[in-house]
Amino acid sequence: MEDNSVITPWEVSGEIDYDKLVERFGTTRLTPELLERIGGHTGRLHFMLRRGVFYSHRDLDLVLDSYEENGRFVLYTGRGPSGPVHLGHLVPWMFTKHLQAKFGSKLLFQFTDDERMLLRDDMDEGVTGHWVYQNALDLMALGFDPDKTEFIVNTRHIDKIYPIALKIARRVTCSTVRAVFGFREEANTGIMFFPAIQSAPCFLESERAGEPVPCLIPAGIDQDPYWRITRDVALKLGYSKPAQVHGRMLPGLRGDAKMSSSLPSTAIYLTDVPALVEKKIQCVDTPGGPDGCPIFLYRYLLLEESDEEVNSVYESCRSKRISCEECKMGLVKLVNRFLKGHQRRRELIKGSVKKMLE
Amino acid sequence: MEDNSVITPWEVSGEIDYDKLVERFGTTRLTPELLERIGGHTGRLHFMLRRGVFYSHRDLDLVLDSYEENGRFVLYTGRGPSGPVHLGHLVPWMFTKHLQAKFGSKLLFQFTDDERMLLRDDMDEGVTGHWVYQNALDLMALGFDPDKTEFIVNTRHIDKIYPIALKIARRVTCSTVRAVFGFREEANTGIMFFPAIQSAPCFLESERAGEPVPCLIPAGIDQDPYWRITRDVALKLGYSKPAQVHGRMLPGLRGDAKMSSSLPSTAIYLTDVPALVEKKIQCVDTPGGPDGCPIFLYRYLLLEESDEEVNSVYESCRSKRISCEECKMGLVKLVNRFLKGHQRRRELIKGSVKKMLE
Repeated sequence: MEDNSVITPWEVSGEIDYDKLVERFGTTRLTPELLERIGGHTGRLHFMLRRGVFYSHRDLDLVLDSYEENGRFVLYTGRGPSGPVHLGHLVPWMFTKHLQAKFGSKLLFQFTDDERMLLRDDMDEGVTGHWVYQNALDLMALGFDPDKTEFIVNTRHIDKIYPIALKIARRVTCSTVRAVFGFREEANTGIMFFPAIQSAPCFLESERAGEPVPCLIPAGIDQDPYWRITRDVALKLGYSKPAQVHGRMLPGLRGDAKMSSSLPSTAIYLTDVPALVEKKIQCVDTPGGPDGCPIFLYRYLLLEESDEEVNSVYESCRSKRISCEECKMGLVKLVNRFLKGHQRRRELIKGSVKKMLE
Repeated sequence: MEDNSVITPWEVSGEIDYDKLVERFGTTRLTPELLERIGGHTGRLHFMLRRGVFYSHRDLDLVLDSYEENGRFVLYTGRGPSGPVHLGHLVPWMFTKHLQAKFGSKLLFQFTDDERMLLRDDMDEGVTGHWVYQNALDLMALGFDPDKTEFIVNTRHIDKIYPIALKIARRVTCSTVRAVFGFREEANTGIMFFPAIQSAPCFLESERAGEPVPCLIPAGIDQDPYWRITRDVALKLGYSKPAQVHGRMLPGLRGDAKMSSSLPSTAIYLTDVPALVEKKIQCVDTPGGPDGCPIFLYRYLLLEESDEEVNSVYESCRSKRISCEECKMGLVKLVNRFLKGHQRRRELIKGSVKKMLE
């Protein structure tokens, strides 16, 4: 947490108070003791832990207990395949990749193509199938271990999770779903069932093993409430509650609190060409200082692994030794260098990813 | 319909007015013209049509239009596998078998083990799996063509129907399901989605063929409202509305309007031994005349194919030429003769039915 005192990561453009989210959701801060315990397994802490990008959790201590005893936990995350991946998606994904590499954990990755079709009239299996493949390429190009990564494309692999989803759904009332997800009476009946489908992978490895296998979900802290139902149901069904580790969100290009696919102008996509990346970054309105500046935060939260470098940029900006123009050009280089390597890796794995999705 | 004038089939123990159900549900009576048209394909009408056991429909004329043009429609029915099959189940099943034999239609038979688990805490895949097999034996022992019969055990074959169920569920609101099925707010989210799962097979053959394949559902008329949602959704999705042909229900042993598994004392199961059948039939309270008498109706609705025989029993009873005791013993013989053959056929097909369920 060495950087926290320097760059006040908790207030992002005045919109998200990450401290207050911990209180509001009732999650637990990652303590220095817990971080040290993680470091005991991983070696030097990942920069996202050093900087408090991932900063909160539920039951991560229990996951470590179990790991230290049985050498095992499963990672679970996923995505709705209705568009391209942007930099904001990479914050939890890169951290998840780190956890897989250090703990040797299997990753279950769910493509919620069913949820996309239940919510959007312009989605069908042709469209979602395209994005499943494109998004899977982006995920695997980050360096996940193909032998320890299992895709669950809901419409294709529903047989794996439907029996578990039934057990969950039987314990979840419509009024609970409505309260947690904010659906109205007019909600369709598919989306009402969907939380059970999304929860099922949390328990899949336990079902397969015939004994509790802890599940850890790395995600933006805004996702926390969506797992409340799953956690409530888990014990009733004899599973352990899915644990979570919560991260901050990458801000959007327009100063939005979160980079979002539903607002394309706020996002840098992993398939953007260099000139487009440059144009997008040039157009960012900067506050004239590093705190809450998206340009700085892209480095800090995601792209700049070196603490020295990130501190140097912070100080140079604050003392006006570099202009916003220079700083933006530095970020353009950083993003385009990353994307060039990413897009090359993406090409190389096309055949193997196709096989993984069958 | 030659028998209708003789034995007034429409009033069963004063509880179900089959005439009024046609009005209340807004279904259409099978007219002499339609019956004649059916007979044009089947030869002599099945006794259940001659006697008005099946007496009402929706869009059966359209199914015949399509059959006469393309030689094809699919039959669909099913069962919740949570207990043994009784005589009441056989009324629609035997009629369905007749339709399969005469029209060469494929039968889709759905086992709604998921629905059983969503509604009953004492159900799991162990229990429903047992009943799936037992019930499938009873079905196939009636003589369905194994090459033209496809089982859909929902928890095992969900991949076949989930994509279609999603399309349906997207168009069905919770308030509609609540209105049709009478669920309360406290209903679980699985049972809310379930109508879409139950509707999906109606459209499965159309999806597979890439063109509309009409679907005909033979069932007790009490089931009609449950297909309202499916029919409403069909046209929006580019499918044809599932057609129905509606039958009367077999009364229970205690004078109940319908033989029901949830009231075991009202039912004769296909696995009952002869002495138990005799005991059950002996205990029936008879009204002292054929109208509304369960003993007579078991013959009339299901077991006695010969019109001469059924008329003779009717007249003998009305004119007191036979006692209730004699009439009951006649039925005991009829039931036990049927069950003996049925149980023998059941044994012979165990291997092939197991394979069909895989």
